[in-house]
Amino acid sequence: MNVNGKPFRSIWLDRDGWSVAIIDQTRLPHEFLTRRLETPDDAAEAIRTMRVRGAPLIGATAAYGIALAMRQRGDDQALAEACRTLAATRPTAVNLNWALSLMREALAPIAPAQRMEAAYRLAADICDGDVATNRSIGEHGLGLIGELWDRRPDGVDVLHILTHCNAGWLATVDWGTALAPVFLAHDAGIPVHVWVDETRPRNQGAALTAWELSSHGVPHDVIVDNAGGHLMQTGRVQLCITGTDRTARNGDVCNKIGTYLKALAAHDNGVPFYVALPGPTIDWDMQDGIAGIPIEERDPAEVIEVQGQLGEGRTGTVRITPPGVTARNFAFDVTPARLVTGLITERGICPASEAGLLSLYPERAGD
Amino acid sequence: MNVNGKPFRSIWLDRDGWSVAIIDQTRLPHEFLTRRLETPDDAAEAIRTMRVRGAPLIGATAAYGIALAMRQRGDDQALAEACRTLAATRPTAVNLNWALSLMREALAPIAPAQRMEAAYRLAADICDGDVATNRSIGEHGLGLIGELWDRRPDGVDVLHILTHCNAGWLATVDWGTALAPVFLAHDAGIPVHVWVDETRPRNQGAALTAWELSSHGVPHDVIVDNAGGHLMQTGRVQLCITGTDRTARNGDVCNKIGTYLKALAAHDNGVPFYVALPGPTIDWDMQDGIAGIPIEERDPAEVIEVQGQLGEGRTGTVRITPPGVTARNFAFDVTPARLVTGLITERGICPASEAGLLSLYPERAGD
Repeated sequence: MNVNGKPFRSIWLDRDGWSVAIIDQTRLPHEFLTRRLETPDDAAEAIRTMRVRGAPLIGATAAYGIALAMRQRGDDQALAEACRTLAATRPTAVNLNWALSLMREALAPIAPAQRMEAAYRLAADICDGDVATNRSIGEHGLGLIGELWDRRPDGVDVLHILTHCNAGWLATVDWGTALAPVFLAHDAGIPVHVWVDETRPRNQGAALTAWELSSHGVPHDVIVDNAGGHLMQTGRVQLCITGTDRTARNGDVCNKIGTYLKALAAHDNGVPFYVALPGPTIDWDMQDGIAGIPIEERDPAEVIEVQGQLGEGRTGTVRITPPGVTARNFAFDVTPARLVTGLITERGICPASEAGLLSLYPERAGD
Repeated sequence: MNVNGKPFRSIWLDRDGWSVAIIDQTRLPHEFLTRRLETPDDAAEAIRTMRVRGAPLIGATAAYGIALAMRQRGDDQALAEACRTLAATRPTAVNLNWALSLMREALAPIAPAQRMEAAYRLAADICDGDVATNRSIGEHGLGLIGELWDRRPDGVDVLHILTHCNAGWLATVDWGTALAPVFLAHDAGIPVHVWVDETRPRNQGAALTAWELSSHGVPHDVIVDNAGGHLMQTGRVQLCITGTDRTARNGDVCNKIGTYLKALAAHDNGVPFYVALPGPTIDWDMQDGIAGIPIEERDPAEVIEVQGQLGEGRTGTVRITPPGVTARNFAFDVTPARLVTGLITERGICPASEAGLLSLYPERAGD
């Protein structure tokens, strides 16, 4: 998507032909800085510190991390070590392991001397595949938004869509998952307005989603995470769309902490609640999301301190609690399938259930 | 309650015998500053800018505001003007109008020359009455906590209580509403631990509730407002208690934005959800809370900017959104009675319904 009129992806091969460039998302929205990754450790650091975030982009970065490792040394030990280091960066996202498995399985049978070239090619394919996938999610979601718009009640002259966290193009290689349908609907002339949950503790909504929507000219307002229930109760939300970091076989979706609360409010008020996801986000081995998906607990400093712009171009943090107060920082929650109206995938829209998922991915039936 | 070992109320008559002292809650938890109110406009400003907040304390401050007005001029016009100015400060809290009506009805029949003395006496009575009310709420709530503790499942060795916003002693004249039972349970030796919702946008939980619990030595952790659903889903909350700014006759409760989302999560997970309130918070004329209670919309700057401690004793704010991004700031929401397990009042605990409320306040049956 465009940044100041110039097209960008969230990750790309640098002009030197071997190092990998990313947008440092910890600096957004206040600074737009790109950063070069030269080693697998650089890639791991970028994932761990959330310079790159969003399940699809984490997968793409891990793939390039393997390519950077193979550039240093192509032997089996180097491959195994890089996979281990990269896999340990974030515990929840399934795309990370999907991308690493894909790389490992493709590279292991190849002679070490040829692994570097193959790894770069494969990482580029993963990126291009993600872009095509998201574009397709966008088109299926556009169909849904178009239907809601056509069937709008009298008096509704703008379609209000609530989203949580950032599942825009910055969370993927391009287009985004939850936001792809929104960008396409806006471009198609459907009057949409987005309620942007700020998404504490890291404020990816207030920072990244608002930045993406602003850059693309989509009308929106930032709200605190507490506000969505009230807006749904008073008829001011026509659709919720979020992304997901891991979808269980039974349709349970793991996403940024707080998603479950919005799904409860949507259910209580008859607001459709859709989750947008690319196929690799589905964990076919996970039978029950609530029982089985591990929830990452992060540094309490993310809760206690809030980062932002101090003024005059300086970023800084403020501590919001009294000295000595402790906090806990759970990064994700699991929304049970019963609260999800449907899943928007690159292959179409399906119910949030094993049967629904298998109707779109029949090749997984025997898994 | 104690601050650095010294007992304080949240509002008191200054040693000069006429000016009114408050704790400036906009400076907490980073600075403990008291402030003198000398005019009704000072009182109105303190309410409007939330130097004092919490429904009971707003009522008490308004009462003293009338006393300060009567000190200047005791005539009918001065009384009417002060009531109008103070009533316009915050639209949602019912205690504000309750206290102003009480003052007006008591003072109107009195000769102007005697109104000042009567107003001070009445304001002091309102404060003392609030303290007694909250102590009584605390004792009824302690009974409930004691029962939950006695019936705790195997393996539960701490009772986890989730609260939203600040309904502690700072929100009242002393003791608090939702926190009064928690303070008493802790003092009674029941091992309680409080999950403190930070309560965006103004972070009254992270700032004030955490400060109160710290000062009293009650174990607690601050969490983002997004986290409660996950904690309830994973069995880590045994009880929710919040306050309320206005309770409708049908048992709907209006409280800080986000309360409704926690009530939904509690209901979905079988966690008891109680609301603590003093009688004056009940709006007997409000038949249906969701349909009828007006929801204050505040300055979007509260969403866009976060206030806290910069370090070295300086407070400051950071902007969390990109330049030019707009926000909306809804201050309250209404939790439907069907999601409320019970109401804890100074007269006992009742179901959240008209019949439940009338069982404790039978004198209102004819209203």
